[in-house]
Amino acid sequence: MFLAAASDAMKAGDVTKLLLSLAVLLGAARLVGEVARKFRQPAVLGEILAGILLGPTLLGGLHLPAWALPVSVTLDAIFPKGGPTFIALDGFRAIAVTLLMLVAGLEVSLSSVARQGRAALLVSVTGIIFPFILGAGTAWLFPESLGMSPTAQRLTFALFVGIALSITALPVIAKTLMDLNLFRSDMGMMIISAAMVDDLVGWIGFAMVLAMMQADRGDASIALGPASVGSTLLWTIVFIGFSLTLGRWLINWLMPRVQAHLSWPGGVLGLILVTAFGCAAFTEHIGIHAIFGSFIAGVAIGDSPHLRQRTRELIQQFITHIFAPVFFAGIGLRTDFVASFNVTLVALVLLVAIVSKVGGCYLGATLAKLPHRESLAIGFGMSGRGAMEIILGTLARQAGLITDELFVALVVMALVTSLLAGPAMQWSLGRRRQLRLADLMGDRQFLPELKAQNVRDAIAELAERAASVTAQSRDIIEQAVWQREQIMPTGIGDQLAVPHARLQGIRRPMVFMARSEQGIDFGSRDGRPARLVCLLLIPWNDQTLQLELMEVIARTFSQHDVRQGAMEARTFTEFLAALNQATPHREAR
Amino acid sequence: MFLAAASDAMKAGDVTKLLLSLAVLLGAARLVGEVARKFRQPAVLGEILAGILLGPTLLGGLHLPAWALPVSVTLDAIFPKGGPTFIALDGFRAIAVTLLMLVAGLEVSLSSVARQGRAALLVSVTGIIFPFILGAGTAWLFPESLGMSPTAQRLTFALFVGIALSITALPVIAKTLMDLNLFRSDMGMMIISAAMVDDLVGWIGFAMVLAMMQADRGDASIALGPASVGSTLLWTIVFIGFSLTLGRWLINWLMPRVQAHLSWPGGVLGLILVTAFGCAAFTEHIGIHAIFGSFIAGVAIGDSPHLRQRTRELIQQFITHIFAPVFFAGIGLRTDFVASFNVTLVALVLLVAIVSKVGGCYLGATLAKLPHRESLAIGFGMSGRGAMEIILGTLARQAGLITDELFVALVVMALVTSLLAGPAMQWSLGRRRQLRLADLMGDRQFLPELKAQNVRDAIAELAERAASVTAQSRDIIEQAVWQREQIMPTGIGDQLAVPHARLQGIRRPMVFMARSEQGIDFGSRDGRPARLVCLLLIPWNDQTLQLELMEVIARTFSQHDVRQGAMEARTFTEFLAALNQATPHREAR
Repeated sequence: MFLAAASDAMKAGDVTKLLLSLAVLLGAARLVGEVARKFRQPAVLGEILAGILLGPTLLGGLHLPAWALPVSVTLDAIFPKGGPTFIALDGFRAIAVTLLMLVAGLEVSLSSVARQGRAALLVSVTGIIFPFILGAGTAWLFPESLGMSPTAQRLTFALFVGIALSITALPVIAKTLMDLNLFRSDMGMMIISAAMVDDLVGWIGFAMVLAMMQADRGDASIALGPASVGSTLLWTIVFIGFSLTLGRWLINWLMPRVQAHLSWPGGVLGLILVTAFGCAAFTEHIGIHAIFGSFIAGVAIGDSPHLRQRTRELIQQFITHIFAPVFFAGIGLRTDFVASFNVTLVALVLLVAIVSKVGGCYLGATLAKLPHRESLAIGFGMSGRGAMEIILGTLARQAGLITDELFVALVVMALVTSLLAGPAMQWSLGRRRQLRLADLMGDRQFLPELKAQNVRDAIAELAERAASVTAQSRDIIEQAVWQREQIMPTGIGDQLAVPHARLQGIRRPMVFMARSEQGIDFGSRDGRPARLVCLLLIPWNDQTLQLELMEVIARTFSQHDVRQGAMEARTFTEFLAALNQATPHREAR
Repeated sequence: MFLAAASDAMKAGDVTKLLLSLAVLLGAARLVGEVARKFRQPAVLGEILAGILLGPTLLGGLHLPAWALPVSVTLDAIFPKGGPTFIALDGFRAIAVTLLMLVAGLEVSLSSVARQGRAALLVSVTGIIFPFILGAGTAWLFPESLGMSPTAQRLTFALFVGIALSITALPVIAKTLMDLNLFRSDMGMMIISAAMVDDLVGWIGFAMVLAMMQADRGDASIALGPASVGSTLLWTIVFIGFSLTLGRWLINWLMPRVQAHLSWPGGVLGLILVTAFGCAAFTEHIGIHAIFGSFIAGVAIGDSPHLRQRTRELIQQFITHIFAPVFFAGIGLRTDFVASFNVTLVALVLLVAIVSKVGGCYLGATLAKLPHRESLAIGFGMSGRGAMEIILGTLARQAGLITDELFVALVVMALVTSLLAGPAMQWSLGRRRQLRLADLMGDRQFLPELKAQNVRDAIAELAERAASVTAQSRDIIEQAVWQREQIMPTGIGDQLAVPHARLQGIRRPMVFMARSEQGIDFGSRDGRPARLVCLLLIPWNDQTLQLELMEVIARTFSQHDVRQGAMEARTFTEFLAALNQATPHREAR
């Protein structure tokens, strides 16, 4: 209980359970999410898995170890099915998904969509129409076998399935493009814009379906609810119209004033969250869902050129790393994925989802005269449904529109299409993932302290270590690197030197990193001695790799935090930790 | 309701109310908090006031405007006294206060305390003992008139009052020291260390009192609660002992590994929050309060040298700007400050609190051979109780230890001592607050586009504007600034120039800021033309002011974000917004 006495407030035991559930859900979701990430899979897959692990089907009945808590309890006791803890967690999840959709909305940039040309428009239109017609058609013809809830109306259901298949997951696409170093390319910007349009249209369509559901039910049971369905539709249109025009202008007008006169970053954080919660309450109130309000609020806010990158990151990082895992683990926790797994339905949904989206986008891209391979890649990229689909499915299930079986099929479809996006794009384009320094290093490839005082000795010292790790002889390595060094010094400034050589008999590129306390003069143009010496050994026949690696190294160490951290690292772990902060991780939901 | 069907889950109307309450509470708290800040008062004062404004005493009965919502509701309907929304908000507040204490714990640095010498120790010890003895003594002698709850035990109550007066508020002190530019000084570090010790000892003492309360009640009504009181005390000691030794070591060992191998910053955020929630659940479970667990977790985590500044800021900013306002506004909302305001009690608590803390610390500082004025300043600084006292009072009231009247008196005391800290320290030291550029500028002192192509013309252009704002003639200003410029050029590098002059007939310092698109060569040592020209006009007789202002300007514009923002500003508002991000605002709670 907090503060006032009230009959149904939280008791001490409830607070314990609430905090313990949060700790367990967040901990498990983050851990399994990280495992998924190690296998280059979306974190959301791991988070849902974590929930399934903790749920009644698996560990639920387990007794927690006696040393962990003074009395013995089972996991099920931590996640009760009712009572104050349940309600409070429910409230937390409602807040979490509202904030998640705010982040999703912030990523939609209307102005950058407007700048994109005909190609993006074509791809987005065909990318919506095909899945919509195929999905809605199948659902209309076979509603029962596709998992329509007995209480739902056929038309509403068909429209929902159409929309569910048309939607796309911006973060999955963004993450995939970043992995392939295509995010800032023309193709990247085009896909992103097309996906933004699909997202926006899809969610607006879903809001309409929710309004129709109100009509189907014909009820006004919601406490503060509007009297009629007409008003729901009307208010939805008014809300969207206002938010994306006047509202957007108002936010953009307010933003610099808030940043100038209120505290930083408290003022702007408050503005964004109050707007999001307010819009969410409004849309929930008029009969569509809260998430829709915060999504549209996010779109309106994210479009302001005054919104700073730091603010975006602050909101995005806290919400995607804290609120989102709890939400998605909750889905696994509360769904019986085994009992509701219908193989035929899953296969059907997957097939229709992939064929219609990849086909639709491919067609659009081809019409826009893009080459075959690129068109295919765009199709696979847009096909990733990610967290957006799962949230959509959650709401439809909660609204009594779809069966548990269809819900599970949609979740599986969302995960599979997201898993597929990266490898399929890679394959279509014949392009490899961006190299990451950490993948080319091992414990023994880090030298915390060079003894050498000059370039020659430093290269010899590094060559000796390299010889002990590779099959090459020390002399060959030293000679090759030293010859290259004499052609042109490899000090690239900012206290960093990158001696390197291509060698026969080396199969994969290797990076050796050495720190020098006093610094070694590698002849850099800024005249500063190198305190980080990075030796690259590259297979003889790989010509492009060297340039790519040099670029990755220069980019990574151009960041002050990374350079500083690396220069202070005493162990390989500390060095990896410094490297790891080069790019804040973007969750591919 | 989210996901599974359950009898007492949240309905759509509950979600609406929950989100609306959050929007209204956060919005009002942030707004009134900002007003308080404008008057240089702690934000927490404004936040509590916002709650009082919204509460039943004032606006509660008001009908919300009809255009805001399709149906008419009163504010009271948004903040119900029971039901799912109430419980969910209660849960949110429980999470909020847990996280707030995590942030408080993160600010305690055991290692920096250990580095401080005898003086800090003396001040902290006398700063605890005096208020404790005076407080506990008064409470023991006059328990009823001091506001002991009828159900409480006299000894427990006396100990509580003693502790309540000994506690201090680190953030208030830190903020005050920053305002006076003393944070990094010897005296600043000393006060901070002493305050850390007081905080730590105070909270541990309070945990003991909570354990004793369990004994007083002799109940084990808490769902998962421990069987006996002995076990509460034992577990408390084991928990503190473990957390601050092995636990601390473990966190420090884990931190670089998490940063190296998990996603950044998701991995480390997860580690910190899971630890905090876990410890909070544990301490709540053993019978002391959740906040104690997250506080100690924060102390253990904050001490790790591997914890990055960016992580600290991410956590601190989101929690203090989003969770804290909702929590403190809730206090105002749920307390009737008018009915429970007992003038005598408030005066008594205030008197004892100020005299004992200022006196105690003054004595300790004098014993440590610090000068009279500094000792006094230390006393006033340590006397600020801030948010810590309010949280402590909230828990004691919730535990049925104190009456509403004493609670109100403690809140008032916390606010008054915090208000007093800044001005009293300023007065004791005869030191002025740090200058802020924004305070020395007005709309007309910003020139978005200089026409001048050279230094002479630029000075003339600025002088003309200055003449129109001040009572001085254009020629006098231009001549003084130009003369100074000829002695030594004022380009200070990084595309910034600071021409300046001291003038008779100017009463207060003035800053004029001009942007030049193509840049003007102000003879800076880095050879780059100045794109920001900052003219300072300073009263003739103020010798130190010029140096101080130059330092403030150099420091402000040394930050890349600020410089970039200022160079891109088209309006005075945008310029202020750029300036405002120079130092993220630190809430003085």
